[in-house]
Amino acid sequence: MAENQDLEVPQTLEGWYVLHEVYAVDWARLRETSPDTRGDLAREASNWLREAAGSEGDSAAYSVVTQKGDLMFVHYRPTPDDLNRMELALRGLQLFDYLIPSYSFLSVIEVSLYELTGIAHKRLADQGIRPGSAHFDDAFAQQMEEQKARVKDRLYCSIPDHDYICFYPMNKRRGEQVNWYSLSMDERRKMMRGHGRIGHKYHREVKQIIGGSVGLDDWEWGVSLHANSMLPFKKLIYEMRFDPASALFAEFGPFYLGIRREPDQLPDLLAGKLS
Amino acid sequence: MAENQDLEVPQTLEGWYVLHEVYAVDWARLRETSPDTRGDLAREASNWLREAAGSEGDSAAYSVVTQKGDLMFVHYRPTPDDLNRMELALRGLQLFDYLIPSYSFLSVIEVSLYELTGIAHKRLADQGIRPGSAHFDDAFAQQMEEQKARVKDRLYCSIPDHDYICFYPMNKRRGEQVNWYSLSMDERRKMMRGHGRIGHKYHREVKQIIGGSVGLDDWEWGVSLHANSMLPFKKLIYEMRFDPASALFAEFGPFYLGIRREPDQLPDLLAGKLS
Amino acid sequence: MAENQDLEVPQTLEGWYVLHEVYAVDWARLRETSPDTRGDLAREASNWLREAAGSEGDSAAYSVVTQKGDLMFVHYRPTPDDLNRMELALRGLQLFDYLIPSYSFLSVIEVSLYELTGIAHKRLADQGIRPGSAHFDDAFAQQMEEQKARVKDRLYCSIPDHDYICFYPMNKRRGEQVNWYSLSMDERRKMMRGHGRIGHKYHREVKQIIGGSVGLDDWEWGVSLHANSMLPFKKLIYEMRFDPASALFAEFGPFYLGIRREPDQLPDLLAGKLS
Amino acid sequence: MAENQDLEVPQTLEGWYVLHEVYAVDWARLRETSPDTRGDLAREASNWLREAAGSEGDSAAYSVVTQKGDLMFVHYRPTPDDLNRMELALRGLQLFDYLIPSYSFLSVIEVSLYELTGIAHKRLADQGIRPGSAHFDDAFAQQMEEQKARVKDRLYCSIPDHDYICFYPMNKRRGEQVNWYSLSMDERRKMMRGHGRIGHKYHREVKQIIGGSVGLDDWEWGVSLHANSMLPFKKLIYEMRFDPASALFAEFGPFYLGIRREPDQLPDLLAGKLS
Amino acid sequence: MAENQDLEVPQTLEGWYVLHEVYAVDWARLRETSPDTRGDLAREASNWLREAAGSEGDSAAYSVVTQKGDLMFVHYRPTPDDLNRMELALRGLQLFDYLIPSYSFLSVIEVSLYELTGIAHKRLADQGIRPGSAHFDDAFAQQMEEQKARVKDRLYCSIPDHDYICFYPMNKRRGEQVNWYSLSMDERRKMMRGHGRIGHKYHREVKQIIGGSVGLDDWEWGVSLHANSMLPFKKLIYEMRFDPASALFAEFGPFYLGIRREPDQLPDLLAGKLS
Repeated sequence: MAENQDLEVPQTLEGWYVLHEVYAVDWARLRETSPDTRGDLAREASNWLREAAGSEGDSAAYSVVTQKGDLMFVHYRPTPDDLNRMELALRGLQLFDYLIPSYSFLSVIEVSLYELTGIAHKRLADQGIRPGSAHFDDAFAQQMEEQKARVKDRLYCSIPDHDYICFYPMNKRRGEQVNWYSLSMDERRKMMRGHGRIGHKYHREVKQIIGGSVGLDDWEWGVSLHANSMLPFKKLIYEMRFDPASALFAEFGPFYLGIRREPDQLPDLLAGKLS
Repeated sequence: MAENQDLEVPQTLEGWYVLHEVYAVDWARLRETSPDTRGDLAREASNWLREAAGSEGDSAAYSVVTQKGDLMFVHYRPTPDDLNRMELALRGLQLFDYLIPSYSFLSVIEVSLYELTGIAHKRLADQGIRPGSAHFDDAFAQQMEEQKARVKDRLYCSIPDHDYICFYPMNKRRGEQVNWYSLSMDERRKMMRGHGRIGHKYHREVKQIIGGSVGLDDWEWGVSLHANSMLPFKKLIYEMRFDPASALFAEFGPFYLGIRREPDQLPDLLAGKLS
Repeated sequence: MAENQDLEVPQTLEGWYVLHEVYAVDWARLRETSPDTRGDLAREASNWLREAAGSEGDSAAYSVVTQKGDLMFVHYRPTPDDLNRMELALRGLQLFDYLIPSYSFLSVIEVSLYELTGIAHKRLADQGIRPGSAHFDDAFAQQMEEQKARVKDRLYCSIPDHDYICFYPMNKRRGEQVNWYSLSMDERRKMMRGHGRIGHKYHREVKQIIGGSVGLDDWEWGVSLHANSMLPFKKLIYEMRFDPASALFAEFGPFYLGIRREPDQLPDLLAGKLS
Repeated sequence: MAENQDLEVPQTLEGWYVLHEVYAVDWARLRETSPDTRGDLAREASNWLREAAGSEGDSAAYSVVTQKGDLMFVHYRPTPDDLNRMELALRGLQLFDYLIPSYSFLSVIEVSLYELTGIAHKRLADQGIRPGSAHFDDAFAQQMEEQKARVKDRLYCSIPDHDYICFYPMNKRRGEQVNWYSLSMDERRKMMRGHGRIGHKYHREVKQIIGGSVGLDDWEWGVSLHANSMLPFKKLIYEMRFDPASALFAEFGPFYLGIRREPDQLPDLLAGKLS
Repeated sequence: MAENQDLEVPQTLEGWYVLHEVYAVDWARLRETSPDTRGDLAREASNWLREAAGSEGDSAAYSVVTQKGDLMFVHYRPTPDDLNRMELALRGLQLFDYLIPSYSFLSVIEVSLYELTGIAHKRLADQGIRPGSAHFDDAFAQQMEEQKARVKDRLYCSIPDHDYICFYPMNKRRGEQVNWYSLSMDERRKMMRGHGRIGHKYHREVKQIIGGSVGLDDWEWGVSLHANSMLPFKKLIYEMRFDPASALFAEFGPFYLGIRREPDQLPDLLAGKLS
């Protein structure tokens, strides 16, 4: 059964750690400061973001639509410590005195090997290498390393530079009758394929980054969609909702919609202008 | 199966982007200001709303009943950037220092083509054009453009000028046994028809605007009802609740009830008078 | 089916609009004011309540038990605008600077015609008048007007003047298997009868006012019980809980318990005394 | 059926009304006061609690573990008005300016007559007295009065003086398939017996006070366990959880754990010392 | 049945009481203080933590990733009173004026004897000692004492000194159809074995501490994972999620991820540096 268990768990590859942070701006208090002070803190924030974007990984800012927040920062970094350092650096900015924490999410960029886990197992079985043996573990780990090299660009990418972001956390349902984790690997693989097909249909318009967050935050995945219009977010997610993988098994958290702002645009945004 | 998928997803047409924003007024702090200050900020807000209502799209204000808020602003605009600009403009008003954010909702005016999706598919099939082909996609897109021209007045309308608004977000249920997204297109179409019939019965009294919000906010739709009395809201929604589409599949978020206030009436409202 | 639909929806009659508002008192800040100021604001509040109670409809105040609040105001009024005016008037009192909004609920006094809807339909059918025809609509509306005249005293009553109030909002369940709105009119009527029988058993001790709130607030009904002791609230609701209409179908919101305070008693209450 | 209904509802006897109130202390602001002020307010609170404990009923204070609060007050009183007076008296203390309301619960000490309801009904039936008749009601009320005299000490007791309290509210489940209120009286009686057996097993270590709160607060019961160690709380509740009455039907609210502090110990506690 | 009941409840052994406390730092207000004040309060906090770590039990601090908090303190202590004293001591620090309570959890280190409960029962039965008798209780208690001596190091351990902590509370599901507490002891034992097998697979990388919290806090267990990288948290919990014990029965609360900071590192952390 331990062996079956191994066959039922899809391997995952992990890249950059990811932090999404949403803040409301305390506009009333910000307005009470002198124009000089506002200029200073905006410049400081702007410089911080520019430097952050130039670090190993990437950083970006978004103007958030609705009262869910005003600013969203997204950071990709090699380690959780690096992300924590980004948080602390932001907390050290003058701007932070005028920010009200609204939402945050920790994940790590993930490539799920639904297809390849089975293939790797089969390949090793064909060579007479049995799961559970040290030999198997070594050979399997070797295959995963090869896969990781292959998808390196997806695991260690920059933040897509599209105009809009749509971020939301999600779970696979573990209901009393409808339970993703009780399905067989085959059933799950089949559904992931249908799911992928729809994603692919929109791949020219929408760039999708999956953050795995089991054990890291309150939802199992954090999904970031990037596009140059908001409509494809709606079209893509609506179409997926009719796909069994979503219709039956997806549970969604809050949705955050943002408009990309470059470091140079932060001062204008903090002055209330979407330049 | 990719083809079946296409047949199961109702096409939607999208118009203006829509933002609903509810605020509580910090009456105690507002009262501490001098009458001159209050006059100034009320005039500024009044001018802002008048100008906003004259922009491409529309804007309106409501006095909200109950502690859920005091003021609701509704904006229709061509792009999410325009809505974000409206938010930032409001945040720039003196009045904003006395507003406490209470609720907001982002959607886009939507016409759902339950009947026409099937007809369009059939028509193309009759011409021997197969779903999945580039030819099909072009021909189908062409048909959608024609539909869009036909319902243009519904997609790009003004905010109905009735005395009362009833706004609420909603989902179609995705329960473990009762799941809207697992029904066939035919079953859903039939239920949407029954649903439409009740809406039609009240169409002289109640104007309904549907905002699609899949991928844009935390619920799938944002419904705005407009009428010159509040009773039809109750009558219409109660009657619909017995209709299978609602009885089995509707999940409702919070309800916001407002009394329309024109730009000229804002100063009185901020002085505590429902003129 | 449109006709069947009509037969399945119980007619309702509506009277006064109702607003329940609960506030916590900011005792610490209130105590910081001078005795004169406290005296002034208490007198102002007392006068406001006395006048409000004398308006068309009715108004009353309660001292709320537990941390859910300190003060509950209940208003009955002819229109939602009148209720909104009451809210704005309260917000204009000096007292309001020391109130923290805690809960509110909007409804309209409702009499549900479960028995009479069927009888009226049958009577018209016996006269050969078919549902769906204009003739039917007129004749039915006429019958409803007659009913309204008959139950006028229940629709346009004063707030019962008992010592205690128990207010709670509720829904009829729309579960995946147990769904009130999927039952036939007959099944619902039968259950409403059993429900009414228990209410009747307590009618000497407990006066019940039902506010319908479908489309007006986040629950379908707001129930107010009035009695001269709190025990009958517990006895009545506990007994009803074993009745199928409640056991299977009732979903309850928060409960608010209050002790009636007359306008003259407000100053004492604001001085921390339950006279 | 009205008669059956009567047979299905267990009679309850009621004693003191009970209020649980949890507060966080605003330690930062409290520390800003002078030692004299702190001394004064602690003495005032200490005197208030001593006097309260000496009133008809009882009062006690606890130091709460975890961030759920710092102080819990428990009051037993003859009437809800008495409890409301206790609340108002606390709000009048200087200490109250440094308290942040965190939780409260209203109930009334209850003895549930699962066994005796059936016996009483049978006894009357044997005498040929039919439920529903005035004769029955009188005879039954008489029997209940006798029971009340018998369990008087349980209905009008002091707060157990053990070192620790564990308070939590709970419901009996009304699920779509698993519904306590749809069980027969016999099934419920049998389960209550098993439940009682476990309670009895711990009766030397744990004193249990049941507050009935149907119609009084948001849960159906408020349970207070009192013991001289916290482990029996865990052992008792864990064992009960495997009992069908809990395994299938119990729904639990938040748990509050406190360490008993006598009036004399309040000043030390407010100085940050658990003497 | 009382005897069966005993056979169905797994015995548990308890060690140190455990408190997890998460705080956000009010960075804006902290920054307003003079460097001297900041130095003083950081030193004071540092000394407090050093002393706390040297007490009977253990204490540790973590820098929390995401907006869920900035600082997490973990305390192991012999009694709940000791934990309450730790809370009060922290509340007495100057630092506390700049901390905002965010989350806390009370539990007691627990070793669950799923395998041994059955063995002990069988052994006693083989000796002819019947459950329910005083003889049985003594003999069983004796066996538990022996077990407790055997696992003493697990019940009274130090806080693992790994770089990262992952803390989350959890329940075993009590759904209407899928209910852990309705399973037989054998079924539960079998699932706990599978669960343990996965834990064991990661035992070199991840140290797991289980806190039992039935009757102590709002979830049944508080799980702390300790490792020198965050990825094993994700891998371990994801793999377990496919195991029936988790797939069907686990309900998870919020996840808190922290980076271990020694007492000497607190001043740097409070200065915004992850040294």
